[in-house]
Amino acid sequence: MGERIGFIGLGIMGRPMAMHLVEAGYEVTVWNRTQAKAAPLVDAGARRAASPKDAAARSEITITMVADTPDVRQVILGPDGVIEGVRSGSIVVDMSTIAPVATREIAAALADRGAAMLDAPVSGGEKGAIDGTLSIMVGGDAKTFERVLPVFQKLGKNIVHLGGHGAGQVTKACNQLVLSLTILGVAEAFALASRAGVDPAKVRSALLGGFAQSRVLELHGQRMLDRNFEPGFRTRLYHKDMGIVTEAGRALGVPLLGAGLAAQLYQVAMSHGFGELDYSVLARVVSEMGPAAR
Amino acid sequence: MGERIGFIGLGIMGRPMAMHLVEAGYEVTVWNRTQAKAAPLVDAGARRAASPKDAAARSEITITMVADTPDVRQVILGPDGVIEGVRSGSIVVDMSTIAPVATREIAAALADRGAAMLDAPVSGGEKGAIDGTLSIMVGGDAKTFERVLPVFQKLGKNIVHLGGHGAGQVTKACNQLVLSLTILGVAEAFALASRAGVDPAKVRSALLGGFAQSRVLELHGQRMLDRNFEPGFRTRLYHKDMGIVTEAGRALGVPLLGAGLAAQLYQVAMSHGFGELDYSVLARVVSEMGPAAR
Repeated sequence: MGERIGFIGLGIMGRPMAMHLVEAGYEVTVWNRTQAKAAPLVDAGARRAASPKDAAARSEITITMVADTPDVRQVILGPDGVIEGVRSGSIVVDMSTIAPVATREIAAALADRGAAMLDAPVSGGEKGAIDGTLSIMVGGDAKTFERVLPVFQKLGKNIVHLGGHGAGQVTKACNQLVLSLTILGVAEAFALASRAGVDPAKVRSALLGGFAQSRVLELHGQRMLDRNFEPGFRTRLYHKDMGIVTEAGRALGVPLLGAGLAAQLYQVAMSHGFGELDYSVLARVVSEMGPAAR
Repeated sequence: MGERIGFIGLGIMGRPMAMHLVEAGYEVTVWNRTQAKAAPLVDAGARRAASPKDAAARSEITITMVADTPDVRQVILGPDGVIEGVRSGSIVVDMSTIAPVATREIAAALADRGAAMLDAPVSGGEKGAIDGTLSIMVGGDAKTFERVLPVFQKLGKNIVHLGGHGAGQVTKACNQLVLSLTILGVAEAFALASRAGVDPAKVRSALLGGFAQSRVLELHGQRMLDRNFEPGFRTRLYHKDMGIVTEAGRALGVPLLGAGLAAQLYQVAMSHGFGELDYSVLARVVSEMGPAAR
């Protein structure tokens, strides 16, 4: 494998992703704020970097997979950040979910150093990261995309190039937006059915056969029926993503009445202390607003 | 075929449905407020009734398929209505989409005359009625359901018995509720993507591969991209259904924040004069609230 890879951010998602690259035979240099998390990667053959700058200096492709917009700014543009180590002709790939506007700024800063950037947020959660079946939504120029594609193919299945800088983040925001309102619809339908004395499990089955079908009704709907809110995808992170959605709407001047409501209901979920539960817990928020919890 | 069938309401949906029953060899007696609409059925072998009362008097199973709750009350409980002609041991099947509470009242009134009732609203629209592929959501007692099932099987494919009186209408309301928020999610996502300079067609393709997948994204999403708002299912009727959803929430004391918002946005669609367009026209309402229509 010709390209050396830097991997920054070894959390729930980043760790299994970096491991796939090590296992695929890439020379991988890893960095994580909490250093102990790098140990399993180092045991598997990865090198340990002293800083994001160091990781970038040793790599042709540097991947970042951290929690939020400020974290990405910090590891790329901050002191000892990627931008200080990155060489002309190399590529930075941010796979975190962050604000589209911020992505474009970071890409511009990196371009000044002669480095290309892709935004490549993912969906599919921890399970997708472990199984190597993530969906990857990519923005940036086509040539850069082609060069990184073999790396993406070690991490995911549904890999789509959507346009220039930020197009990946915009698409991810659209994904979270659609999810939020579909989940809200299913949660409210189940609350209505329960209160009317109709079994929501039967409602789910009946609706799956028609136009109201969705993967949310199928998967998250079943979780709601089982009252199984073990993550899955944590409400805390989803709440963060809904902040990105509504902020993107603000930044672009697009009114998003539905997304705004869903974001507020996730705020209620956070207030109830549901941050570490699966984001389908919105069903509990909805049903507990009503007359009697099921 | 032993059971004689009365069919009341020969609109866009009722006409092809009644025709399937005539073609299946049932003895069908039809009635419609605008009498001319009965002509094609009569040509095909149906009898013409003088009133809903008359249709019911000549039938073991009387089906109503009209526009709204007041229409159902009128043809069943009003002067010369079904209730005046219905015989003990016969069955009234209301396939209209109406308020669940009203259904239960009508069922009780019919029970006093010794007649059973099923609520059996459908989804699948005009195309489903013509093709005989409607989804049929049925409430009422199981024995009555079994007796009518062969008739339903001439009209639809996905036929589900969901519980006692009103369970069919509750399920239909859930169906419309889930649809409304899924449509709103897709509409807002496309508006956000367009404004951000990302091709919504690419967003649709990318999202169809993941958790945001839905039949709405697939079918109505494509309509939105094509700006093809020929019905399909008319906004005017969908707006009526959203009134049933929010009224059911009120009657049962269930807060439905998402459905309430969607219902108001369909009110905006009506104000814009979109009543005769397909209900996916919500995408126009959403995008025209924003900076510049695509």
